[in-house]
Amino acid sequence: MAKGKNKATNSTTQVRIGGVGGQGIVLAGRLLGRAAALFDGKEAVCTQSYGPEARGGASRSDVVISNQPVDYPYVLKADILAVLFQEAYTRFRDRLAPGAMLIADSMLVQPFEDEEEDVYTVPATQIAEELGGRMVANIVMLGYLIEKTGVVSRESLEQAIRTSMKQQHIEIDMKALDAGINYARSEAGA
Amino acid sequence: MAKGKNKATNSTTQVRIGGVGGQGIVLAGRLLGRAAALFDGKEAVCTQSYGPEARGGASRSDVVISNQPVDYPYVLKADILAVLFQEAYTRFRDRLAPGAMLIADSMLVQPFEDEEEDVYTVPATQIAEELGGRMVANIVMLGYLIEKTGVVSRESLEQAIRTSMKQQHIEIDMKALDAGINYARSEAGA
Repeated sequence: MAKGKNKATNSTTQVRIGGVGGQGIVLAGRLLGRAAALFDGKEAVCTQSYGPEARGGASRSDVVISNQPVDYPYVLKADILAVLFQEAYTRFRDRLAPGAMLIADSMLVQPFEDEEEDVYTVPATQIAEELGGRMVANIVMLGYLIEKTGVVSRESLEQAIRTSMKQQHIEIDMKALDAGINYARSEAGA
Repeated sequence: MAKGKNKATNSTTQVRIGGVGGQGIVLAGRLLGRAAALFDGKEAVCTQSYGPEARGGASRSDVVISNQPVDYPYVLKADILAVLFQEAYTRFRDRLAPGAMLIADSMLVQPFEDEEEDVYTVPATQIAEELGGRMVANIVMLGYLIEKTGVVSRESLEQAIRTSMKQQHIEIDMKALDAGINYARSEAGA
């Protein structure tokens, strides 16, 4: 996948979002999938696996987005890996495709000193707290992710939020989305 | 899959829950998957596919529950199909495994006159309304489903609800679960 603000040029993009229970990891994946399929005209499959791994602590949500029907919904090598929890980082960091983008919450994840991948960091949880609550850190992360990768359009993600979330949450979700996008833009201009 | 209140004896059970946006279909699948994997000691994969189909109106949530790691998470032939919306019934009714159990919300689904499958009906939405709101029809349906099939234990589903839902929703969710289980039991004794 091309880095920077480009539409992914290959036809299938594998996205993994990793975190811990209560961070809205599954919801984040679902919003991304719905944005892609319902509003960007693509196909998307969201998968959550529960097993011995899930009993550990790290949770994950996988989204495969494609121009064609998705034959195989498991994420084998992520093109985009976003992590909001240290254990999710340590567990999933070795499953990246060449040229993948690894994004980490800068408050909750400390990348290894010998990490070979470029790690993009965003203070998603800190920004969320400033907006009113940690529960929107997942949306801040999504804003950053889509601005950096273009995997779905901002308009489609906004529509997915409007049609998925309860009315009383939409305002703060939109602020969180804006904040994530703006953080990515401020980096680009720095 | 054996009908009646038995543990499924084959190692993999494919469950599909079909409905329409706003019915909590994805949540129902997730609760089932978490109950199986986190509290029943099995493996579970939950999948939501979004595509041209999702743009139609019927939504679905697939859960594969197994004693072993799940190689293929798509539901090809459902062992259990629960539908809470007419279009979900018409769309998914032909994807049943031999001996499958088809469960329909009796208020929202009208089975075809020439339906060859035995259709189990439960007034999940009506029961939910009596409890205080349609939003728990999905939990009533789950109660009925687990009592009829034994695919996960009641205790595990209760734990999944307690650890997944917001505190203020747990009481009504538990009532909804009880109501679904009791409806199934009253049928069995009729």
